[in-house]
Amino acid sequence: MINAYAATEPGAKLEAYQYDPGELGEHEVEIEVHYCGICHSDLSMIDNEWGLSEYPLVPGHEVVGKVAQVGERVTEVTPGQVVGLGWHSDYCHQCAHCHSGEHNLCQESTMTIVGHHGGFADKVRADATSVIPIPDGVDLKSAGPLFCGGITVFNPLTQFNIKPTDKVAVIGIGGLGHMALQFLNAWGCEVTAFTSSEAKKQEALELGAHHTLNSRDEKTLEEAAGQFDMILSTVNVKLDWNLYLNTLKPKGRLHFVGAALEPLDINVFNLIMGQRSVSGSPVGSPATITEMLDFSQRHGIKPMVQTYKFDQVNEALDQLRSGDVRYRLVLER
Amino acid sequence: MINAYAATEPGAKLEAYQYDPGELGEHEVEIEVHYCGICHSDLSMIDNEWGLSEYPLVPGHEVVGKVAQVGERVTEVTPGQVVGLGWHSDYCHQCAHCHSGEHNLCQESTMTIVGHHGGFADKVRADATSVIPIPDGVDLKSAGPLFCGGITVFNPLTQFNIKPTDKVAVIGIGGLGHMALQFLNAWGCEVTAFTSSEAKKQEALELGAHHTLNSRDEKTLEEAAGQFDMILSTVNVKLDWNLYLNTLKPKGRLHFVGAALEPLDINVFNLIMGQRSVSGSPVGSPATITEMLDFSQRHGIKPMVQTYKFDQVNEALDQLRSGDVRYRLVLER
Repeated sequence: MINAYAATEPGAKLEAYQYDPGELGEHEVEIEVHYCGICHSDLSMIDNEWGLSEYPLVPGHEVVGKVAQVGERVTEVTPGQVVGLGWHSDYCHQCAHCHSGEHNLCQESTMTIVGHHGGFADKVRADATSVIPIPDGVDLKSAGPLFCGGITVFNPLTQFNIKPTDKVAVIGIGGLGHMALQFLNAWGCEVTAFTSSEAKKQEALELGAHHTLNSRDEKTLEEAAGQFDMILSTVNVKLDWNLYLNTLKPKGRLHFVGAALEPLDINVFNLIMGQRSVSGSPVGSPATITEMLDFSQRHGIKPMVQTYKFDQVNEALDQLRSGDVRYRLVLER
Repeated sequence: MINAYAATEPGAKLEAYQYDPGELGEHEVEIEVHYCGICHSDLSMIDNEWGLSEYPLVPGHEVVGKVAQVGERVTEVTPGQVVGLGWHSDYCHQCAHCHSGEHNLCQESTMTIVGHHGGFADKVRADATSVIPIPDGVDLKSAGPLFCGGITVFNPLTQFNIKPTDKVAVIGIGGLGHMALQFLNAWGCEVTAFTSSEAKKQEALELGAHHTLNSRDEKTLEEAAGQFDMILSTVNVKLDWNLYLNTLKPKGRLHFVGAALEPLDINVFNLIMGQRSVSGSPVGSPATITEMLDFSQRHGIKPMVQTYKFDQVNEALDQLRSGDVRYRLVLER
């Protein structure tokens, strides 16, 4: 039996919940969960914001732990190995994307907390392809958030050929943004943090930004015209995106990893005149997660976390709902 | 003196107009104009739609002719050589884009008909960098439209690494679209034409499309989900762009070379879930124009044109205003 915490209906407090995971599949891995990050999408799923939730729902998709047992055809990991698990817990293994190592774009993937029980539990299971070994030297307590928030901001650097000579800005210095600043600094880029919070300015600089700009000041944005190769937006509120487009160099890219619900009112002339792009991306592939972990270990990149014990999960979720988190929450045993 | 046709105020009929171009600059080339294509942007400039026009305004930026004389430091072309001139007649030669061969993205470029007299004339002058030799075997009568409309749709294939294995759709089978179909077919792609005109279906197939889809039929668009690597939009009307985004594969790109004035109401989730991009681009660089001419010559790609004599320029403009052109107009001596 697996001892988990589950929501039994939309928006409910989590309750202790036991379930029988059945016989271990031949490609499956069972992970003993040591830490599990709490991501804002766990809240969205608890609340059924996306209409995808099935109850009882066990959240948790930023898992760090040890392999407890493996199915008979698993060769990727061995019992006792330190591993992580993120947003995806399985892939179709048959589509062009899976065949190309772009499992994160598989349209038939299984998501760890969508119709599958996640990591707010003593154990969690997943297909071996989704279970990523964590290299020695990575701080395990803070590693969980790398598996969803971290890979979400790391992935675009690999996908869009961001170069160390590039100038990159980050909009929103929060759970995602504070990791983006660290990655970009280590990537060799000139890094600018757009933030409306005076209090976060100093922290942004300490996290790796070389400059900060006040995102609420239209004049500041106008003066920053033509500066950036890429802007990474991690916020989920509507901003004046044409103003930000204007701060891109020709061939620049405004990239979204945070999803505002309102449509992007993009002026197409702004795209045409400077050959600019607007794009978005989800989490990364297993291969990219592995690259990210190696890069993080080598550069000492660590999410800043606050921890709660697993049985304090509801307090932790309340804090996340309050919006006052610097910068990620992690459950620990 | 140069004998030209000019508009003396916004929206005016063109009139015969003579001007003295002064002494030839040391990097300048004077072209004897044999043919000049008429582009929709000539109309926009005559009408001062973009607020950039200066009068008297000599339109014409799809020039084909012979080099009449060259400035003393010109080494690129020699008198008598067959050349073309497009949207740009000079560049700053100093910015990162000029230095990188991306002159088309130079922010200080001179546009052939913006504060400079264009090719509706017996002669036109331009900086040598903008004057592109036309290889033997290119049909000169129809070559003019390659220098603006043609390069506009050819350029994205080079910029975004379109591969012969890609599936590409074109929205709008008109002045730009009918050249895009030819380029894409010769590029080796599987080509789909979105068109709302029953009459244009057969022509689209003859021009190089392998398939046509009715862009006015929402059900057709829904059934085409996840098919295309790139969609090239050549229209300047507002469509339901989220429906088109949905017809892209993961990593697909919706690319604009036609500019609808209404903002693009893009749903950011559509970008994030499939790592999709929305982008735009202007004309191409001198190097890319040269590549395009070589490619066109090798594959027998030719704009379909109707011709008028230079002194019929107002009739030609009236036809263009009517919208009933298959597919480009060219002035000839």
